[in-house]
Amino acid sequence: MEPRVILALDFGGTKHTAGVLEVRALWNYSPSAQPGEEITPGVTGELWTAVRREFAPPGSSAQTDLRLMFDMASDLLAGSRPAAIGVSFGGPVDSQQGVVRLSHHVPGWENIPLASLLWEEFGAPARVDNDANAAALGEYRFGAGRGCSSLLYITVSTGVGSGWILDGEPWRGHGGMAGESGHTVVDPSGPLCLCGKHGCVERFASGPYMAADARELLARHPEQGALLRALAGGDLEKIDARMLSQAAEQGDELAWSVLERGARALGTGIGNAANLVNPQRFILGGGVTKSGPRWWETVRAAARSTALPEVEVDIVPARLGDHAPLWGAVALAQDLVTQGSQTERRI
Amino acid sequence: MEPRVILALDFGGTKHTAGVLEVRALWNYSPSAQPGEEITPGVTGELWTAVRREFAPPGSSAQTDLRLMFDMASDLLAGSRPAAIGVSFGGPVDSQQGVVRLSHHVPGWENIPLASLLWEEFGAPARVDNDANAAALGEYRFGAGRGCSSLLYITVSTGVGSGWILDGEPWRGHGGMAGESGHTVVDPSGPLCLCGKHGCVERFASGPYMAADARELLARHPEQGALLRALAGGDLEKIDARMLSQAAEQGDELAWSVLERGARALGTGIGNAANLVNPQRFILGGGVTKSGPRWWETVRAAARSTALPEVEVDIVPARLGDHAPLWGAVALAQDLVTQGSQTERRI
Repeated sequence: MEPRVILALDFGGTKHTAGVLEVRALWNYSPSAQPGEEITPGVTGELWTAVRREFAPPGSSAQTDLRLMFDMASDLLAGSRPAAIGVSFGGPVDSQQGVVRLSHHVPGWENIPLASLLWEEFGAPARVDNDANAAALGEYRFGAGRGCSSLLYITVSTGVGSGWILDGEPWRGHGGMAGESGHTVVDPSGPLCLCGKHGCVERFASGPYMAADARELLARHPEQGALLRALAGGDLEKIDARMLSQAAEQGDELAWSVLERGARALGTGIGNAANLVNPQRFILGGGVTKSGPRWWETVRAAARSTALPEVEVDIVPARLGDHAPLWGAVALAQDLVTQGSQTERRI
Repeated sequence: MEPRVILALDFGGTKHTAGVLEVRALWNYSPSAQPGEEITPGVTGELWTAVRREFAPPGSSAQTDLRLMFDMASDLLAGSRPAAIGVSFGGPVDSQQGVVRLSHHVPGWENIPLASLLWEEFGAPARVDNDANAAALGEYRFGAGRGCSSLLYITVSTGVGSGWILDGEPWRGHGGMAGESGHTVVDPSGPLCLCGKHGCVERFASGPYMAADARELLARHPEQGALLRALAGGDLEKIDARMLSQAAEQGDELAWSVLERGARALGTGIGNAANLVNPQRFILGGGVTKSGPRWWETVRAAARSTALPEVEVDIVPARLGDHAPLWGAVALAQDLVTQGSQTERRI
């Protein structure tokens, strides 16, 4: 008998990933990485039969994205029909209907019935969710959330977004909008966010906003930030979150002040979420979380001092890196395959 | 055959309530009050067989509270054995074990196995929850949350507390601490809260804090707040939230400024919760919510401007008044009675 395979897809805005693995490989899967180590499932082996990742060419549309993904998937499947398909999409999704609402980056994605299109193309049922929910599900089932019953996964990157797992299931909210932790307000007298509010978590803590804040400080204080200026080679537009943490690590006080403010805002938001929902764990992923131990200490301290003493706040780094949404897609497909068979369902 | 009855108990700190009703009365119960009208289930009739409420005498302890409640319940039951007992307790509770953790008002409640004691006394299974969760459940099943699948119930009174219903079930959090909306921070440069943080929702929006803020403003601005001073008859210690709203209604700007600040903070907290969890409805109860239409408008406007445009924010008044926890106790008992019988479970 041909092995039953799962097809996992991650539509990532600028890069798309497709992966194929055997259903039975999931049965007793336990990641070989040590606790705390990051799992790198992008490489073939261990669990995956094959994984491919490609950048979307400039000028992409929904149509070109779909073609690219379908071609990758067909290559990987090599003629076999998948048992189920899981999809992470980088934008708002109606996960119940399997319909993409829109993409903030690529035109033409308005109301695309992705699950139906996948059924037509591959003859298999598909489940679709947005990338934050998928990443939360991936970390829950394969990464830093294994063994937890509830968690909030937060990605701190170009934006700040998040996904909930409550009682072992994704919590998407009444209108599918849950997890907008980046747009919770932590300081109404803070700077203006693109969303129109002042002092959102994202306004303080995301990479591009921190870079902008650093540029503004450098312009206002010509005598400060020498290290950061040197790293940028004089071109302040080059500054990003990684450069900030490099400069801060080397002792640049201006760079650290920006990172610290972001970490504090994020920690306050986490503490508020802890008081409000009291999940078992917070899992932080995304580029900004690579900002070093001082950044982590500041996030944890702010969260701890915001949460009530009786409220536990366990904050850990994500383990699945950039591939968390793809792992979430695996989990979505896994649920389709094992529906009705509770023994297989939770690996 | 003797009718099967439910015993519902509300340990309220200063007042205790016991109610008895027939299980079958719940089957097709639909409140007769019009939408928006407050339901007053304290009166016998319609649904309840009997309800009694008594104030705890000064110097109460867990022992005297229990004695008082047991006596009331025995009177109401008149010798019949209840099918199940539901309990709302005004303090932290381990609802899984049916054990009270402590009371912030009454000594001796530390680790009292309330469900076991009730079993011994009345020979019936009991389910215990804290008052915020019980009130949320009560409003969900009998009040302003009927027909919703998710909601946050917030009581704005001497404190600000809340309870979640998510996917039709109470969400208590990993450590049973979910719903501490009063201690989410909405302005870190705000005044100090007793919890040790600055700018908690409760610090701005609760009755006693608003009264204290008004007193401070009156002391600082002897030329302002004439109406409020007159209402207090010169004794500023008499000021409470109700007096503030009376004065504000009559045009006292100082009184309104305090109420407005509280309403804004509460609305910001609600908007943050909407972004984070996206429940279908927010239900507000407690004395402060009687502060008139301007207070409600301010809460709604602040919540609306804090939530992202795509996030719906439906904020409605509670319908069960002070009795919401007692109704929640009914729902807890109802679940015990109808466990395994899904058709009866949701009335």
